[in-house]
Parts: sequence; C-alpha cells; structure tokens
Amino acid sequence: MNFQPVLDAIDAELRPLLGAEGQVASYIPALARVPAAQFGIALRTCDGHEAAAGDADTPFSIQSISKLFTLTLAMRRLGDALWERIGREPSGNPFNSLVQLEHEHGVPRNPFINAGAIAVADRLVSLGHAKADLLALMSDLCGEAIAYDEEVAASEAVTGFRNIALANFMKSFGKIDNDVREVLSLYFHQCAIRMNCRQLARAAAFLCRDGAHPSDGEPEVTTERHTRRINALMLTCGTYDAAGDVAFSIGLPCKSGVGGGIVAVVPDQLTLCVWSPALDANGNSLLGLKALELFATRTGLSIF
Amino acid sequence: MNFQPVLDAIDAELRPLLGAEGQVASYIPALARVPAAQFGIALRTCDGHEAAAGDADTPFSIQSISKLFTLTLAMRRLGDALWERIGREPSGNPFNSLVQLEHEHGVPRNPFINAGAIAVADRLVSLGHAKADLLALMSDLCGEAIAYDEEVAASEAVTGFRNIALANFMKSFGKIDNDVREVLSLYFHQCAIRMNCRQLARAAAFLCRDGAHPSDGEPEVTTERHTRRINALMLTCGTYDAAGDVAFSIGLPCKSGVGGGIVAVVPDQLTLCVWSPALDANGNSLLGLKALELFATRTGLSIF
Amino acid sequence: MNFQPVLDAIDAELRPLLGAEGQVASYIPALARVPAAQFGIALRTCDGHEAAAGDADTPFSIQSISKLFTLTLAMRRLGDALWERIGREPSGNPFNSLVQLEHEHGVPRNPFINAGAIAVADRLVSLGHAKADLLALMSDLCGEAIAYDEEVAASEAVTGFRNIALANFMKSFGKIDNDVREVLSLYFHQCAIRMNCRQLARAAAFLCRDGAHPSDGEPEVTTERHTRRINALMLTCGTYDAAGDVAFSIGLPCKSGVGGGIVAVVPDQLTLCVWSPALDANGNSLLGLKALELFATRTGLSIF
Amino acid sequence: MNFQPVLDAIDAELRPLLGAEGQVASYIPALARVPAAQFGIALRTCDGHEAAAGDADTPFSIQSISKLFTLTLAMRRLGDALWERIGREPSGNPFNSLVQLEHEHGVPRNPFINAGAIAVADRLVSLGHAKADLLALMSDLCGEAIAYDEEVAASEAVTGFRNIALANFMKSFGKIDNDVREVLSLYFHQCAIRMNCRQLARAAAFLCRDGAHPSDGEPEVTTERHTRRINALMLTCGTYDAAGDVAFSIGLPCKSGVGGGIVAVVPDQLTLCVWSPALDANGNSLLGLKALELFATRTGLSIF
Repeated sequence: MNFQPVLDAIDAELRPLLGAEGQVASYIPALARVPAAQFGIALRTCDGHEAAAGDADTPFSIQSISKLFTLTLAMRRLGDALWERIGREPSGNPFNSLVQLEHEHGVPRNPFINAGAIAVADRLVSLGHAKADLLALMSDLCGEAIAYDEEVAASEAVTGFRNIALANFMKSFGKIDNDVREVLSLYFHQCAIRMNCRQLARAAAFLCRDGAHPSDGEPEVTTERHTRRINALMLTCGTYDAAGDVAFSIGLPCKSGVGGGIVAVVPDQLTLCVWSPALDANGNSLLGLKALELFATRTGLSIF
Repeated sequence: MNFQPVLDAIDAELRPLLGAEGQVASYIPALARVPAAQFGIALRTCDGHEAAAGDADTPFSIQSISKLFTLTLAMRRLGDALWERIGREPSGNPFNSLVQLEHEHGVPRNPFINAGAIAVADRLVSLGHAKADLLALMSDLCGEAIAYDEEVAASEAVTGFRNIALANFMKSFGKIDNDVREVLSLYFHQCAIRMNCRQLARAAAFLCRDGAHPSDGEPEVTTERHTRRINALMLTCGTYDAAGDVAFSIGLPCKSGVGGGIVAVVPDQLTLCVWSPALDANGNSLLGLKALELFATRTGLSIF
Repeated sequence: MNFQPVLDAIDAELRPLLGAEGQVASYIPALARVPAAQFGIALRTCDGHEAAAGDADTPFSIQSISKLFTLTLAMRRLGDALWERIGREPSGNPFNSLVQLEHEHGVPRNPFINAGAIAVADRLVSLGHAKADLLALMSDLCGEAIAYDEEVAASEAVTGFRNIALANFMKSFGKIDNDVREVLSLYFHQCAIRMNCRQLARAAAFLCRDGAHPSDGEPEVTTERHTRRINALMLTCGTYDAAGDVAFSIGLPCKSGVGGGIVAVVPDQLTLCVWSPALDANGNSLLGLKALELFATRTGLSIF
Repeated sequence: MNFQPVLDAIDAELRPLLGAEGQVASYIPALARVPAAQFGIALRTCDGHEAAAGDADTPFSIQSISKLFTLTLAMRRLGDALWERIGREPSGNPFNSLVQLEHEHGVPRNPFINAGAIAVADRLVSLGHAKADLLALMSDLCGEAIAYDEEVAASEAVTGFRNIALANFMKSFGKIDNDVREVLSLYFHQCAIRMNCRQLARAAAFLCRDGAHPSDGEPEVTTERHTRRINALMLTCGTYDAAGDVAFSIGLPCKSGVGGGIVAVVPDQLTLCVWSPALDANGNSLLGLKALELFATRTGLSIF
C-alpha cells in the first residue's frame, strides 16, 4: 500500500485547523516558545518504506516518547527483574500524581507515568553509562546522530519540582537506589532529546517488526516477546489519562509526549509519528490524535 | 489452522493443576458449591469452525461476561449517547470500588466495572423489555435457548449489598433514571445467565467477525466500528485490576466473570472461551488465564 | 451572669443580615420551603437559668443534631462495645463521603458523619424499641412532648439514595446487623424530629452538667466520663468539614444539622442552641456560626 | 493544688512498664540509639509553680513539638495572612501524607502535619533570621540557652526524602516561596532542638496563660486570641491520626513529637510535658499518652 497520498490528505485536512485549539506546553520557556501552528507526520513500514508530510523534518522535544526507549533498554538489560520495581497497570490518575504512589508504597503503576519512568531511569543509572547508552541507541536506530538539548534539560531541572517530589517520595519508600539528582539528570535529559517525525518513525520501527532493527542485517533491538509487551503497555498506558479513549477511538498502541509528538504502532505493518505542539487537556497533541484517528479510519488499520 | 490439538494439549497440561490453587467465588451459595476441579475450553473461528476440550459442555454462571452482551445491546440501541453516562477509561481500582464514583460524580469509569454495568442496565431498562431482549439476543447468537438461573439471581439480590450501594450512590448523583430495584433486577439476572464454553464462544463470535452474526446470512449483530470499540474496552478494562497485566502477558481482549469464565478475542481469527471456577486475587479464573497464556504462546496469536 | 442582654444584642445585630447569604437545604421539599429569614437563639445554664431571643420558639427539623441523642443512648446502653463498630477520629472528608468507608472496611470514622450515625442506629435497633426510646428520652429531657415529623421522615426515605448507599455499603462489609430498611427508618425518623431552640438548649443541658439531668432530682442522663467524651466528639467532629475551623474561631463543642440548628456547649456553664435555616458551603448554619462567634467573643467563654 | 504527689504517683505507676511496648523512632541513628526505658514528666502552673518527676531533666529531641513555636512566631508576625497558605482542619490522614496535598493543590490541611509545618517554615524564611529568631524565642521562654543538635539536623537532611518530596510538591503548586533547601534547613533544625521536660513545660507555659510570658513582667508571647487558637489546633490536629482519640480519652490540647515528648495544656491552669521515647503505631509516645490519661483522670482536669 502506498501511504504517501494518505499522509498528504491528512496534512491538507488538518493544516487549516493549526493554532485554533489547544495549548502549547508552557512549564519551561524552551517549550513555551515553540510556534503552535505546526504539524508533521511520517511513517516507516516494516519492510522499510517511508512516507512523510507537513513539518516532518522539524525537530521537537520528544519528552515522554523517550520513555519508550529507556524502557526498551531496561527490559533488554534486566529482563523480568525490572518489574519488581514497576507495575504494568493503567493508573487511572494523572501522569504526575503522587496519590497512587503513596497507596502502593512507592511502586509506580507503569513505566509510562512519570514516577515509573523515573524508576526505569534509576535502574539504568545502576547499570552505568545510561546517558551515553541512550543516545547511542537512538542514533543507531535512526542512522543519524541524536543529541540532548542541554538548554531544555537544564530548564526541566530548574522547574521540575513535581518530578523531584516523585523521585524523593519513591526514595523514601526505598524504591530508588541511586542519588536522586543523578537519576533525575538522566530523566530530564531523556525528555530533552530533539528529533523529528521521520527520525522517530525510524527509531520506533522495531516495534512493528517484532523487535528487529529497522535496518536489515543489524542485531535485533529486543525480542519479539518484549516488543509485544511494550506495544501492550503503549495501548493501556501510553497516552496518560486518555489511554482508554485512544484505544476506543484509534485502536493502536501510542506513546505521546508534551512536546506534541505521538508515536503509534500497527504491529507487522508500520510505525507512525505525528507531531503538533498544541495539547489537549490530557497533555496529548490535539491534532496529533486527530491525525491518528483519520489515519486509522482511512486505512482501516486497527489492532481490534 | 486446526486448533483441536492445541486445545487438547492445553487441557492435558492444566488438568493436573485443577483444584491446587485459587478460590471459588463464595459470596453466594449457588456459586460456592461449584466444584473447583473443572476446566473447559472452546473456540470458534471467524469462518465457523469450532473446537473444544475438557468441560466445555458444562454450564456455569457467566456473571460479568454478560456485560459484553448488555453493552452490545446498549451501543446498538443508543449509539454515542450511551457515553454520556459512562466513561471508557481503565479504573485503576477494584471492580466494585465506590471511591472513583464519588470523585467523578456518579459517572462510572467504564462499562465493565460493576457501577458501569449497572449504568448500562439502567439505559436498557429505559428502553423497555430488557430482560427478554437480552435472552433473545443470547439465544439467537448461540442457536440454543439460554435462560436465567433464577436461584442465582435471587441469591445475588439477597446478598448484593455492594451493588445496591453502587446503584443508590449513582442515583444520588442523578445518574440512574429508573427505580433502583428494577435496574438491579436486570443486573442480577444478567449475571445469573447459565452457559457453557461452546455456547459462549459462539455467542461472542461476532467480536472476531467485525460484528457479523456467527451464522452467515443473519443480520449483523453490531457494526465493525462498535465491534472494534468493544474489543478495545475488553483489552483495557475487561479483567478488572489485571487488565494491564493481561494485555502484557496474553495480548488479547478478554472479559472475565467470577463464575470462572473468560471470553477472549483474536480479531479476524477466532473467539475463545475458557472456564475454571477457582479465581486469583483479582477475581479472574486462575487456570483460565494460564490457558489463555498457553494458547497465545503456542499459536503466536496476539494483537501486538 | 445575665445572658439575656447578650442574646438580645446578637439577635439585633444579625437580624438585618437574614436572608442575605447562604442556601436553605433543598434536598427535600419540607426543608426547602422553610423561609430563610429566621433566627433564634436560646441557652440554659447549668444551674437552670434560661434566656432566649429571636425565633427561639419556632420549631425546626433538628436533622443531624439528633446524632447527639442517639449517641448518648447508645453509649449508655452499650458502653465501650459501641466503639467496635465506629471510630472517634475526624474524617477529613464531607459528611456523606463513601471514600473513607471503603478504605476502612465499613467502619465509619466517627458517630457524627452520616455513616457513623447509621451505624449507631443499627446498634439501637438491635437493642429494640429504638424509635420509642429516642422520643421518650427527648421528651423527658425537655419536659415537653417531642414528635417525629412523619412527612419529613417519608421525604428523607424517598430521596435518601446516598444514605441508602452508605447503609448497604457498610452492610456489604458485615458492619450492619439489622435489615437496612429498619435501620434507615430509625435514621430518617431521628433526623425528622421537630424542636425549637428553647427545647434543644434544655434537652442538651446535660452536656454542660457532667451528664446530670436538666431537672434536679432526676437520675443522671449519662456519666461524667461519657459526657466529656461526647463534648470532645462534638469539638473534633461535630460540624462536618468545618470542625477544625469552628474549634479555631469559636472554641466550643458544637453539633450542627442541615435544618439550620446548632447546639453548643460551655462545660460547667451552659448549653446554647442557635438556629437559622440558610447554610454555608459546609452545611452549617451561616448565621448560626456567626451568632456563636459573637457569643464566644462577647462572653469570653471558650474551652481554650 | 500541689501536683508533685500526682506526678510522683504517675512516675511510680509507669516506671515498671518502661521498655515493654512501643518502638523508639528509628529513621535516623541519633534517635534510634536513645534508650527506650526512660520517662519524664514536668508541669508549670499558670501562676508559676513547677513540679517534675522521673527523667524530667534529660534532654531529648523535641521534633514536632517545635511546630508549636514556629506557629506561634508566624502567627505573631503574619496574623491572619498566614492562613492563606495553610488550613486549620484535621487531615484524617497520616502526618506525612501527600494525598490530601494533591487534592487540595498544595495547601496543607493544618500547621501540625509535616507539610503544614514546612509551609510555616517557608513563611518564616521569608521574614528573615528564622533560625536565630526561633532559638532566641525558645531560650527567652525557658530562661536557659537552647540549641540545635546539629548532628540530628544533618541526619534529618540526609534521610528526609519524604519531607523533601513534600516541600517540592508544594513548590510545584507555587505554594513555597523560598528555595526548598533553605526552607527544609529550618525545618530540619527546628525538629533537632534538644530540650527536657522542665524546659518544655516552661517554654509552653504561655499557652495556659492566655499568651502571657512565663515570667511576669515580660511582654506577652502572643495574644489571648492567638493562644486560644493554638490550643484549639493542638486539640484537633496535635497528635497526628490520634487527635480524635486523644480528645476523647484525655480531653486536653496536646502536641506530640517522634522524639517521645508531648506537651499538654490545661487552659488557665497549667502546661504539662511528658516524655518517653517508645512510640505507638500513630507515632505518639505510648507511656506519654498513658501518663496524660492518668493525670486527667486523677486531677479531673479536662476542657470538656
């Protein structure tokens, strides 16, 4: 199937809506000054074809989409031991809530809420070289050099009181092994990775290929079993409080970030990345979700 | 693919484990006296082939699996208006919790927790003839007469203080239109339907056929769009507090009941029903979940 | 001290404010049609002097103030065994919340939230003759015949879905022994007692007399130890979510009702009853609290 | 009244129970190594008589009792503006809970839970010279030099992840003005003040004297109005989750600390300090509470 016309049509349909609704994330200056009226979409099929439309080459802050890649690294290195510190259930609460963490004694519900991603970061810090390993993985998957945006990372650190609270709260339950500042430095850096839609579609392509590297001939990124499980977590927990609704109306595993990006997977077919900075009340890209709904409707692709 | 050997092997592997672990639901005498050491499995493919093993012909109380069918009826009759009274998000809380209902002013999180199913029942009572319509639907889907177990329904009514509390609590928020007793009578009856694995696999076969009736030539049960959405709800909310874990380890939409039954769907391929009365701590059939995990592993079938 | 001028001055000061702010309880018609612009105040000293001003002879629905008297009856009959089913801590949640009840397995925080008062009613029903005994106690304390307002009781029963939910919820935890309808019938009746400020000041006079009957020569109502404990519960839990604030700004044990009445106690000195139907956001009489604050300020009476 | 025989009798009665029950606070080494088998009691009447028994001269870490004095300072300096950032209601949750703080957007329920005391510390830091002013107040009230135990303060800082989480959480809601580290430095130091029972009974003597300084002729510590309000807060919120129970069974305003000390007030009569390091499940001194109950019973003193 040639997806280029589908992407072009979605871009044409959504472009007039740019800037009309939603709010760009404003908690740090570097995100707040991103112009709202941008939209990009790119995909890569499991056999390596690519298509893109709109602002697919404009880099943005991937934010929580980075949780996909730290989780992949941690599952690869730790196997099932990872799950001693992190659950696999939807949270039913906002992504940065401390309530559940208190009731459940410092064990976060899943690796995609902030507390869970910080717990994953702690595991990676214990393994050593986490910051370098993460960039190496991202660069290898894309075939292009990927970097941290140090200005964004520094801003996150200065204003990230909620995340500092989450990390110290887990530490108070004995569920963080490393120095909280070191763990948060990794977390703030992973959120500050800059990539564009084309790069993200390629980097996450292993998720539609049962874990195989996007480039044939390379060693697998992770196992088929792990890949399926990451996709399952994306579906049940990947879009914050809207996960049920996204499963209901789009029907694909997705992981969103407050930078406005969303990665979606059609297993055995393709990986898709959409981006538009204005967010809805749940913190998901407003036009990004619309784009995914149009894509699912027009192609008939759904896991259900 | 011939699934009979797969089911036989699963039955052979699990039979020695019967009765070793888990607890049969004991809150009403009629459920408490069901012998724990039973296991049945049956499936029906989307092109009409059937296979079964173990106690697949032994009838049991379908309990919460009935929520699949009342939801189908309500979506068919009410369309999107149904969602004004019921959410579509995982609850993150036990199936009979009142906490979330209080925070969210009487709107249940999803149609598969008890409060949500009672809200669905209220909608059906408003439409009239609900009890008769439900039996007619079930009987038509199976091609066999299906009946309420009046003894079980009466026991549920006598001991169902939590459900009476849930219904009155929603009523106090103005979210139940009908007399609470009439709504609960439907709810207690739907839970008291008796069916066996073969019948349930057939009755839920429309879920793997994009909504088409199990018997070719009959009018569709519901639309493709509704069917995908029901499957999505099963995946995110169908197994109580374990939905995330079931998605993670089994990777199929499932709906369980405290009678020990679980219906699972592989879209475009088959619908499966497993049954074993002993439950795990979340209220899902212990060997039922094991059987589904074996089935998914051996066939490689997964939506992810 | 001659309190009549103090009460007259308070009445004079508050009368111009009548009807300006607050909302009369509207959940049942019989309460909703009470004219807002009324204010009464009455007190009885521990040595039997009485004073009153404003609408002190107008009867009103005592509502939750009745919880004082059922608690007194239950403590007298059951002693410390009462506390196996009911806590003694402030709830930190609205008076009709189910959240805490769920976390604490059906044991209400204290006897003054609705759940707690329903639990007290259940204990009284177990002892037999509860409705008659309660009226007999009230009539004896006042020296006048006191009656249930059957219209109000019937209205409470028809619309009391939240209380029906609370009672069934506790029953589901095995914490209500009797038939829920019988327990709620007592609860709805006790709330529907009609009395005026003079009568209530007299009926609650034992609370400023270490448990002695308002009329000298009669047997004590309850022990000094029980009396102190009831006063302590009034202070920490007697005015719903505002208990801390009332202790802070008024400094007297108080019990309020949504009919607009509030009983306050100055141990070893006097019992006071104020009434004005318009309520604040916490469900306490707006001018009633203002009157108590004026009284405390002008007399210098406070337990602190 | 001569209280010396009462204190001697309490000491004699409780001494055989020393070390039998309860746990010394163990979260920092300096507290963990305090021998459990110690008990002290001291009081000062409003006219300046003192009595003491047991280990009344042994210094201990006053911990949360310090919240009394920071609150007094803040009320004196800020008046009602203090209450814009802090509530006055019982929390209904453990002293270090974050749940309520999340629901209530960073405004702590009262100044005696940790979050509230940290919010008070933030106000004092804004006023400048907080650490010096606090020691000056304490020393002036006792008539003896009082000091911070720097070892304890440093230990609190190293292990105080929960308090660091609380402070950052409030900061994330914009409810802390100063640098979190500076605020926590004051908080950890105030908890690390070392005093004995005699000194604390004298330092808190203004609470039974309507705010007058323990030494006649000195300027008042705070106003009568403030003093009554502090006493009210002690009664409703001073002993963590047990405040209702303490009001019920002891009937006096109390403030406890995890160092094992408790200050209690009989308005217009006396201030009392008891100390014994072994704590009950709520974090209150086990024998301290028993001593207060004996004192209240034997003297008949109670505010109710």
